[in-house]
Order: sequence, then C-alpha cells, then structure tokens
Amino acid sequence: MREFLIIGHKALTSGNFSLNDMPGSAGRMDILCRCTSAALFLSHDMRRDVQVHLLLLGEPDPQKIVRFDGESLRYLNPDERSSGSLIKKALDREVGEQEIRSTPGVWVRRGELGMLLDEFVKKGRKIVYLREDGQDIRAVAGTFDDAVFIMGDHNGVTGEEEEIILNVGATVVNVGPLSLHSEHCVTLINNELDRTIAGD
Amino acid sequence: MREFLIIGHKALTSGNFSLNDMPGSAGRMDILCRCTSAALFLSHDMRRDVQVHLLLLGEPDPQKIVRFDGESLRYLNPDERSSGSLIKKALDREVGEQEIRSTPGVWVRRGELGMLLDEFVKKGRKIVYLREDGQDIRAVAGTFDDAVFIMGDHNGVTGEEEEIILNVGATVVNVGPLSLHSEHCVTLINNELDRTIAGD
Repeated sequence: MREFLIIGHKALTSGNFSLNDMPGSAGRMDILCRCTSAALFLSHDMRRDVQVHLLLLGEPDPQKIVRFDGESLRYLNPDERSSGSLIKKALDREVGEQEIRSTPGVWVRRGELGMLLDEFVKKGRKIVYLREDGQDIRAVAGTFDDAVFIMGDHNGVTGEEEEIILNVGATVVNVGPLSLHSEHCVTLINNELDRTIAGD
Repeated sequence: MREFLIIGHKALTSGNFSLNDMPGSAGRMDILCRCTSAALFLSHDMRRDVQVHLLLLGEPDPQKIVRFDGESLRYLNPDERSSGSLIKKALDREVGEQEIRSTPGVWVRRGELGMLLDEFVKKGRKIVYLREDGQDIRAVAGTFDDAVFIMGDHNGVTGEEEEIILNVGATVVNVGPLSLHSEHCVTLINNELDRTIAGD
C-alpha cells in the first residue's frame, strides 16, 4: 500500500463551490484534484494499491479528510473537474468522525493531522515528509515500501504542522534540485517506487 | 532550450469548445492542457527555457500547432481551464502557415508533424521519442541538453507518425517500468534534466 496525504490549507470544506472556479472560490482545490489524479492514474489503468488522503482546512467547516481508495474507486477520470466533482459530492455529506462513503472508493470524515498520523503510526506505516532540503528520494526509496508521503499545497506546510509530522519520526526527502508543484512531486514519488519495485 | 511536442489526435482545431467539457467535446484537450502545465510550471515560477508545441489533429480544421513559449508567456495558471482558455483563444484566430501570436507567449499556425520535425532538425536539435520499449532516460539524459521530446496523447502515436519520427533519427526512450499518462512523462523528463543540469 502506497499512500499520499496532501494538506489543503484554504481548500473549501463544503460542497458549495463551482467546478468552474476551483483555484479561486474553492481555495486552490485544483491542486488537490491534480494530486489525486497524479497519485491514482496509470495509462488506461488505475493504481489499485494507492490511497490518497486530502486534509481540507478551509472554511466553512475546517478539518475534513476526503480519502480516495484506489482499490474500490469508481467514476474518476483524469481531468480536474472529475476529481473535483467527487470531492464536492463528499463534502456535500454531513459527517462526524466516523468515515462514510460518498461514492464508490471515496470516503469522508472529520479529522485533523495529528489524529491521521497517529493512525498511520499505529499501523506501523513509515511516514515520509517532502521538503526541499530533505535527502534525495533516489538514495532512500528502497526503504519506502508501504510508506505514507506527506506534502503541503502551494504554501507548503506550516511550522505547527511540521512539528507534528517530525514528532512522529518522519523521514524528510526531496525529489530533485528544483522546487516543484505537489502533483509533480506525487508523480516523481510514484515513478521512484515503481522503479524500486521493478528492480530498476 | 528544452522543448516538448505533444500530438493530440482528436483535439479540436477551432476555439468552439467549452472549457467545461475538454475531455469530451474538445477531443481530450484536457491531456494537452495538463502536459502544457507540467512542462512549464515550477513552484511559484515558470520554466522560461521551455517551449511546448501542441499538434492538434482533430476536426474541423486539422493540422494546427499551438506553441507556448515559456520565456514570454503570460496569463497561464496551473489549472486545466487556464491553459484550455489560452488554447481556445489561439484556435479562435484565422491562421495560415505563418505563425501569429494570440496572447503573450502563445503562438498558432497551420502545420504538420513532418514539417515541424524538419524545422527542429535544421536547427540541430536532438529528437527524443517516448515509447515504452525505449532506453531508460536515466541512462542517456546527460546527452539531452537542447532536446525536443515527442509524445502522443492517450492513444500514443500512429504507425505513420512513428515512421516520420524515426526517419529523422529520433532516440527512443522510456521514463520507467509502467505505462504512464503523457503529462506524467513530461514531469519525469523535466526532473531528469533538472538533475542532469544540477549534477545530481
């Protein structure tokens, strides 16, 4: 199992947004859409062993988690509107801390970063945090079978969030010499792990 | 200069399409939009040394080339609708074989694959063709300074196109063990060349 957690600091937490304006009124929801697509799609196929957790911290009801489960996922196409539409349907639901399914393979609940990381740690998952001054992923990817990769949106990760992430013993890595968009980092991580698995 | 050429076999060749339905009625224009964004964006910055050529072969007026020039490009945001909107404006223009500027950094003209490749060859550019059975890009990227990278859309490249590409002496490479979307290949190429330049 390969998992990605992307933190959307301004991402709206109600389904009351337009698919025609995801960068604006939906609080850069477009970034989360592209990350979801980059994490899950192969050419003419889907990565069934991947899960994506979107932590949405925007108004009006901050701290919601939308989870895409590659194994059971349906109705997702690669374009931004498609993932946006599934996120919107998830956010339309009334939720508590108990996760509920909004569409096949998409789940939603209330929750925060520390809680989510504790769940990963309890399951024995390795936590990997993307930061520009981290170790080169190519040097360490061999140990990332079964890891959870954490990254921020266009504004990165706050100091408070970083403290929580480092407190659970996260490994800090980078994916190359330049600072990239989150969805490009997701693509590079997938490729590195694909190569590791293939023995390249 | 790093260049990408993406062939959109069904991509509409008039601006008469809806940004709300780029995968459908615009002939998978969404793929070309994502490739454009993947080629040109850095985090909070743009790759000024990159050009993107979109070869559009769909109805109603096949064989148009839309070129994004990173150096002079303006008004491009990372979301699909943004690149879609600039492509739409380019396709709204009446064009011949003489390239015209539709918006800052976006150019359009009539043209076909063979003609475009001849232009690259005359400029002494190396042609690199993405195919799953090619050499691993990691083994050869050191020679790809100043290269043009060619790839197809979701349906790849036709036999006839491939013949034209191989006839100009293209190097055939792949980016990893699995078959990926074109925009993910663009991201992986950019990263490999970034690493080569940085001496990683």
